[in-house]
Amino acid sequence: MRVVVIGQGMAASYLEVGLERLKRNEIPDYGVPLRDWVPVKYDDIEIVAAYDVDERKIGKTAYELAREYFNSSTIPGKLKEIQVRRGIHLGSLKGLPYKARGLEEKYGLEKSIEMLVDEWKSFNADVFLNVITTEPVEPIHSVDELEARVKEGYLTASQAYAYAVAQYARRVKPAVLINAIPSPVATDQAFVDLYKASNAVVFGDDAATGATPLTADLLEHLFQRNRRVLDIAQFNIGGNTDFLALTEPERNIMKKKTKSSMVSDILGYEAPNYIRPTGFLEPLGDKKFVAMIIEYMSFGDFKDEIYVIMRVNDKPAIVGVLIDLIRLGKIALERGLYGTVYEVNAFYTKKPGPPGVKAVSKVKAFYRLLDWLGIKDPRGI
Amino acid sequence: MRVVVIGQGMAASYLEVGLERLKRNEIPDYGVPLRDWVPVKYDDIEIVAAYDVDERKIGKTAYELAREYFNSSTIPGKLKEIQVRRGIHLGSLKGLPYKARGLEEKYGLEKSIEMLVDEWKSFNADVFLNVITTEPVEPIHSVDELEARVKEGYLTASQAYAYAVAQYARRVKPAVLINAIPSPVATDQAFVDLYKASNAVVFGDDAATGATPLTADLLEHLFQRNRRVLDIAQFNIGGNTDFLALTEPERNIMKKKTKSSMVSDILGYEAPNYIRPTGFLEPLGDKKFVAMIIEYMSFGDFKDEIYVIMRVNDKPAIVGVLIDLIRLGKIALERGLYGTVYEVNAFYTKKPGPPGVKAVSKVKAFYRLLDWLGIKDPRGI
Amino acid sequence: MRVVVIGQGMAASYLEVGLERLKRNEIPDYGVPLRDWVPVKYDDIEIVAAYDVDERKIGKTAYELAREYFNSSTIPGKLKEIQVRRGIHLGSLKGLPYKARGLEEKYGLEKSIEMLVDEWKSFNADVFLNVITTEPVEPIHSVDELEARVKEGYLTASQAYAYAVAQYARRVKPAVLINAIPSPVATDQAFVDLYKASNAVVFGDDAATGATPLTADLLEHLFQRNRRVLDIAQFNIGGNTDFLALTEPERNIMKKKTKSSMVSDILGYEAPNYIRPTGFLEPLGDKKFVAMIIEYMSFGDFKDEIYVIMRVNDKPAIVGVLIDLIRLGKIALERGLYGTVYEVNAFYTKKPGPPGVKAVSKVKAFYRLLDWLGIKDPRGI
Amino acid sequence: MRVVVIGQGMAASYLEVGLERLKRNEIPDYGVPLRDWVPVKYDDIEIVAAYDVDERKIGKTAYELAREYFNSSTIPGKLKEIQVRRGIHLGSLKGLPYKARGLEEKYGLEKSIEMLVDEWKSFNADVFLNVITTEPVEPIHSVDELEARVKEGYLTASQAYAYAVAQYARRVKPAVLINAIPSPVATDQAFVDLYKASNAVVFGDDAATGATPLTADLLEHLFQRNRRVLDIAQFNIGGNTDFLALTEPERNIMKKKTKSSMVSDILGYEAPNYIRPTGFLEPLGDKKFVAMIIEYMSFGDFKDEIYVIMRVNDKPAIVGVLIDLIRLGKIALERGLYGTVYEVNAFYTKKPGPPGVKAVSKVKAFYRLLDWLGIKDPRGI
Ligand SMILES: NC(=O)c1ccc[n+]([C@@H]2O[C@H](COP(=O)([O-])OP(=O)(O)OC[C@H]3O[C@@H](n4cnc5c(N)ncnc54)[C@H](O)[C@@H]3O)[C@@H](O)[C@H]2O)c1
Ligand SMILES: NC(=O)c1ccc[n+]([C@@H]2O[C@H](COP(=O)([O-])OP(=O)(O)OC[C@H]3O[C@@H](n4cnc5c(N)ncnc54)[C@H](O)[C@@H]3O)[C@@H](O)[C@H]2O)c1
Ligand SMILES: NC(=O)c1ccc[n+]([C@@H]2O[C@H](COP(=O)([O-])OP(=O)(O)OC[C@H]3O[C@@H](n4cnc5c(N)ncnc54)[C@H](O)[C@@H]3O)[C@@H](O)[C@H]2O)c1
Ligand SMILES: NC(=O)c1ccc[n+]([C@@H]2O[C@H](COP(=O)([O-])OP(=O)(O)OC[C@H]3O[C@@H](n4cnc5c(N)ncnc54)[C@H](O)[C@@H]3O)[C@@H](O)[C@H]2O)c1
Ligand SMILES: [Mg+2]
Ligand SMILES: [Mg+2]
Ligand SMILES: [Mg+2]
Ligand SMILES: [Mg+2]
Repeated sequence: MRVVVIGQGMAASYLEVGLERLKRNEIPDYGVPLRDWVPVKYDDIEIVAAYDVDERKIGKTAYELAREYFNSSTIPGKLKEIQVRRGIHLGSLKGLPYKARGLEEKYGLEKSIEMLVDEWKSFNADVFLNVITTEPVEPIHSVDELEARVKEGYLTASQAYAYAVAQYARRVKPAVLINAIPSPVATDQAFVDLYKASNAVVFGDDAATGATPLTADLLEHLFQRNRRVLDIAQFNIGGNTDFLALTEPERNIMKKKTKSSMVSDILGYEAPNYIRPTGFLEPLGDKKFVAMIIEYMSFGDFKDEIYVIMRVNDKPAIVGVLIDLIRLGKIALERGLYGTVYEVNAFYTKKPGPPGVKAVSKVKAFYRLLDWLGIKDPRGI
Repeated sequence: MRVVVIGQGMAASYLEVGLERLKRNEIPDYGVPLRDWVPVKYDDIEIVAAYDVDERKIGKTAYELAREYFNSSTIPGKLKEIQVRRGIHLGSLKGLPYKARGLEEKYGLEKSIEMLVDEWKSFNADVFLNVITTEPVEPIHSVDELEARVKEGYLTASQAYAYAVAQYARRVKPAVLINAIPSPVATDQAFVDLYKASNAVVFGDDAATGATPLTADLLEHLFQRNRRVLDIAQFNIGGNTDFLALTEPERNIMKKKTKSSMVSDILGYEAPNYIRPTGFLEPLGDKKFVAMIIEYMSFGDFKDEIYVIMRVNDKPAIVGVLIDLIRLGKIALERGLYGTVYEVNAFYTKKPGPPGVKAVSKVKAFYRLLDWLGIKDPRGI
Repeated sequence: MRVVVIGQGMAASYLEVGLERLKRNEIPDYGVPLRDWVPVKYDDIEIVAAYDVDERKIGKTAYELAREYFNSSTIPGKLKEIQVRRGIHLGSLKGLPYKARGLEEKYGLEKSIEMLVDEWKSFNADVFLNVITTEPVEPIHSVDELEARVKEGYLTASQAYAYAVAQYARRVKPAVLINAIPSPVATDQAFVDLYKASNAVVFGDDAATGATPLTADLLEHLFQRNRRVLDIAQFNIGGNTDFLALTEPERNIMKKKTKSSMVSDILGYEAPNYIRPTGFLEPLGDKKFVAMIIEYMSFGDFKDEIYVIMRVNDKPAIVGVLIDLIRLGKIALERGLYGTVYEVNAFYTKKPGPPGVKAVSKVKAFYRLLDWLGIKDPRGI
Repeated sequence: MRVVVIGQGMAASYLEVGLERLKRNEIPDYGVPLRDWVPVKYDDIEIVAAYDVDERKIGKTAYELAREYFNSSTIPGKLKEIQVRRGIHLGSLKGLPYKARGLEEKYGLEKSIEMLVDEWKSFNADVFLNVITTEPVEPIHSVDELEARVKEGYLTASQAYAYAVAQYARRVKPAVLINAIPSPVATDQAFVDLYKASNAVVFGDDAATGATPLTADLLEHLFQRNRRVLDIAQFNIGGNTDFLALTEPERNIMKKKTKSSMVSDILGYEAPNYIRPTGFLEPLGDKKFVAMIIEYMSFGDFKDEIYVIMRVNDKPAIVGVLIDLIRLGKIALERGLYGTVYEVNAFYTKKPGPPGVKAVSKVKAFYRLLDWLGIKDPRGI
């Protein structure tokens, strides 16, 4: 699988470094849910290109950029082969303290998309990974409207990339988009339809990595006991640029949406909740602080309380998910499952596509995924 | 289902009060996992007798005893019909500050068992509920050895009651024992064999109600992500007499066993752990305090931490479980599933019988139970 | 002490009910820091009037309004004597879903202030308690400017009330204003000067009741050990109308200011922090949920972490503080300490006046307060 | 100050490494409460000898032993000069999985003490640091009884060392013993009297470093608000050999005693509590996990709860304390304050001597200590 990374940020660096080290057996595959259970091996994955719009990054190599996060001694030399190229901006970094410029500012959107498709062809890419900064996006709903928007240039960056991947799949070869961010793609009917018609697969939306999947499983635990949830609050704060971006209200709301939609799906009723990224605190770095309260009624009119505190390394969590999704992309392509695949999305994302489906607990989604893969639980239980 | 309660303590009182209030629609059925999904209704359950060996309790009614925990205004008058009778002691209260005496001290063990069977016959009982004080017990393994022990009087109280229920099933009618405490019964091959041969069913061992099932599901959550658990500590402290009894090391070890056996079963490897009732602190009453740490390796050599604090009402939690187990007893009898039923035990108990089976996460056991019952998930997910 | 309450909300109701019950010995004085150590007794306090601008409240009695929070059986009949009167609005409820109207809308501001002073005179009031909804306010700095603003009607409600109290003190008799909310009054030089010249005392600003004083004392604890604080985050969420009001950013910032100003004062250096009311979650009611992380460097380059979770009843906490402040008001008047009193403010408020002083830890402020009062620590330690 | 370390364990290694690095400005002095406020400088401290009874350690250098905990590159070469010598055993390691032998097994106790005093004279020692494994000890109360016990050899190791230091002070020069462990020395009248008569000073007992001082200050915080504490539980678990030793009940009880004695002293009434080292969990290493609950009554019959979770590096915490105590030893000697010094003990120890004094909160003790030292709070607050 030849992978193109879109958004050469922290998640990208952790993936690039981690994958290479994994292939060299320098680290175990902890955090990769499907470990060695699937026929696609870690060695089958290669990152062939990376895109960004931050002027400080374009032209640099993945190796140079990894130095912001890692000790030189642990960065594989192979990363020197990945040079960061200019992508499409469409204002996705607006309001953040970085200087950014996209291809479209020089060439217009349609031409830029064409240029990207050509570049990707030269890389013989199979998988595209969207890990750009969270941007505020609404679904487009229909392919016609989407095509119209492309013409007008009235799209967000994620949508433009998603459209470009469909073009690529149509013109070059079947391809996979992993939409790891909250922008609706796998949950936008426009893209699901377009992808089905283009021999492309999209997984998404928004990688489920930290407190949200745990909350899902705690809710399932309570549902199974018929404990009546009265309220849930879940705060999280971190010091990486992802949290910085999410201090802007319009970006923040994207996460709030993908994070709280699951509550009523899993419980079967509305439970008042407050779940969203809560703040930016630089010294916390990538190891975020999550605090949660769940109050519920137990039998006989008694109230119980659960409090959870988590310290989670944010980027390592997403890398494990991405490595699986890349490998599952291969399987989906082999099975010709164009459009999107609920069984995959349900476990790996916060807001699983296609639009209209319900969230399930992760713990349930996991067994469904194993079934879909034909894998038997190795614990024999 | 006509139910005999053995051990008229706090769990018994909460069950007696709660069940009656539930039947009168004074409280919702929160905390009862199978709610109205099974064909056996709450109205089908009737508590017909209660046994204890504490001199302060024998002869009193369930109504009088409930006043220790409840406001008179909320105790159903019906509880005046349940009078506490003398059971078998066999030293189960030894070391605790209560004066206790059992039938066997006057009549010997064999005769006492016969007397119980006769009494139970007069009640036309179907289900027996073991909620006596946790006692230190080792499995007996073979029916022959068990019979020999009955002769010698070398048994614990739980074992004597379990033996008596088998006699009852054999002589009177098929019956169910719910072993809600850690004494090995459903996990003792001697009893499983005896029950199979006696048209009896035992569910057990040790009702799974508080932090342990949650820990099981947290471990499943981590297993599913291939996060490598480094260590788990789980403390819990409460102020009910259950916690008081567990301050004695030999009793405590019974809980430690049932609680930590699941760790390696669920994770598939040994993870260092410290899981046991930790202390007694009277003002906490029945609302115990649980504190937990789980440390694990995420992808790429990063360590994460989860801390959980729970405030759980102990007795309400067990009542929901008991109400289901009574109803499931009916179903098991109808299906003629004598011996023990793993599908039931796996979800409702900490150390599921029969002996030799593995613990699974509760979240997984729940779906297995629904399958066994032929129930479809009402959320449609 | 004859007390006028301004803002007949939840804090007011809890004070009115609690004080009366305390005087009748129905409840202990837990939560009242100075308990029976000062010569002013609980019986010396009487609430004589209450003001609000919410149309639903004006004209009702304190008794009727207390029923929103308390069981009728616990509300003292005495509260029927307190009728809620119309105060000055000046937009303090703007943006909240309540219909409000102030005297000034009919009579203009200057005339309204005069009317209030006359009413207060008829009540023979000594102490005024500002517990209105948190409003966005900037300090005025000079008395001249303040007088000009009164003329132009360009004031906030807190400022108008504070001005009126000064007029009252000047014209009727020495008086005390307790400014329990974040509006700068005791920290606005304009008011401190005006009060000094008017035989009035102001205590403030913003009653210190919940997580903030605890944070102050945790920081003092770390300072004393020369542990280097790396970061602090403190979230809090509740379901009372105070939290509802604080979801508006301009109100929220008032609390953020009073809450985080202390960090550098106590530590002696800037430590990155995120401390503010975080959200509104209705079912939590008045028992807020606070979650906090403090990370610091210990000796030898090792990092430690402290996590705190609190469940605090918000209104009971402020009532204990208010009862002391009323009594301290009497002492300040007796000593003729017009203006403001740092020794009092330092312990009881989040942003102690006069302007320019530093925050100290509460634990230190407490001993200073005892010194000021001439009280010896009764523990003899 | 020439320091002799008794008990060359983890605390000793962290002190030896940390002190040297501090002197070389490789690390800041975070965690040292008195930082550069006292006239005794870090450079004035020199560790001149170390004693142990573990056969694996005797004869090794502090440098070699530090490698168990530190990377060679961070261990100062200076530690090669400290060779571990054989001390007095008296069964202090009994029950632990180490082979140990003391001087007294060969020479008898009286002769061994004499030998130690001679050795110490050759080192020209000023300060003795007791950081041996926690041992079960009862106070002796009178000097006569102590002398008798020395003759009979009926003493614990701490007592023997404490006696030897007094002999040294009497025969060689005034000296200081820092008793960092729970054995009663500064709280045993026998030693306080002996030291007074011998020109010696003892600081103790049991260094206050982790959750206990924090608990003290939380209790003070609650006392100051007249919040009525209902219960406190405080668990702590770690993976260092200190926690391993404390799994033995007789050792554990020593810590329970020093830790819970403060509750009633600080609150002024008895509050039910459960405070003690709770378990050993190897992978936690030196970074212990502490979990705490405090429940209290607020004003008006409302109950609040505080939960605290701490992750504290155990040894770094004690080193900061030891560095101060050594320096304070110098000051005490200069002032001729023989016996023990409450002002020092109150802040730095869990069970401050002399016997009979009360515990105070640390936050209060700190200001008393500054007064005693004549230091003004540099924050000017
Ligand atoms: N656990 C996780 O880390 C996690 C989980 C779910 C989702 N995500 C999402 O993954 C994304 C990446 O996270 P991160 O921590 O790497 O953030 P980051 O800020 O470190 O990196 C984002 C990168 O995207 C680039 N970018 C922005 N707009 C672009 C555009 N139009 N074209 C190309 N590049 C563009 C930025 O310049 C930056 O380099 C975020 O949206 C985040 O919400 C992360
Ligand atoms: N969530 C839960 O509460 C929970 C969960 C799992 C298991 N359990 C188990 O349930 C049991 C009951 O808990 P509880 O809180 O009611 O305790 P309890 O102490 O209130 O009641 C136990 C009762 O059993 C009686 N008893 C003791 N020996 C007896 C004997 N030989 N014959 C008859 N009666 C006897 C005692 O006198 C007492 O009345 C305990 O063993 C506990 O470990 C409880
Ligand atoms: N622990 C605590 O509860 C605590 C601590 C510190 C400060 N405070 C502050 O105390 C204040 C009151 O808190 P609460 O919980 O009672 O809030 P609340 O919303 O229940 O009551 C506020 C009342 O003030 C009234 N009001 C608003 N503007 C007014 C005006 N111009 N004139 C007269 N009345 C007016 C409102 O109508 C309402 O009845 C808030 O500002 C809060 O921030 C509370
Ligand atoms: N924060 C803290 O670490 C802290 C706080 C307060 C008290 N303490 C106490 O400090 C002591 C040392 O802690 P540690 O972590 O270094 O433990 P450790 O187990 O690493 O070291 C103790 C050392 O003392 C030695 N020893 C035992 N008996 C001896 C004897 N009779 N003579 C000479 N040496 C002897 C042991 O062999 C071992 O080398 C413990 O008693 C602990 O309770 C530690
Ligand atoms: Mg994220
Ligand atoms: Mg229990
Ligand atoms: Mg408040
Ligand atoms: Mg220790």
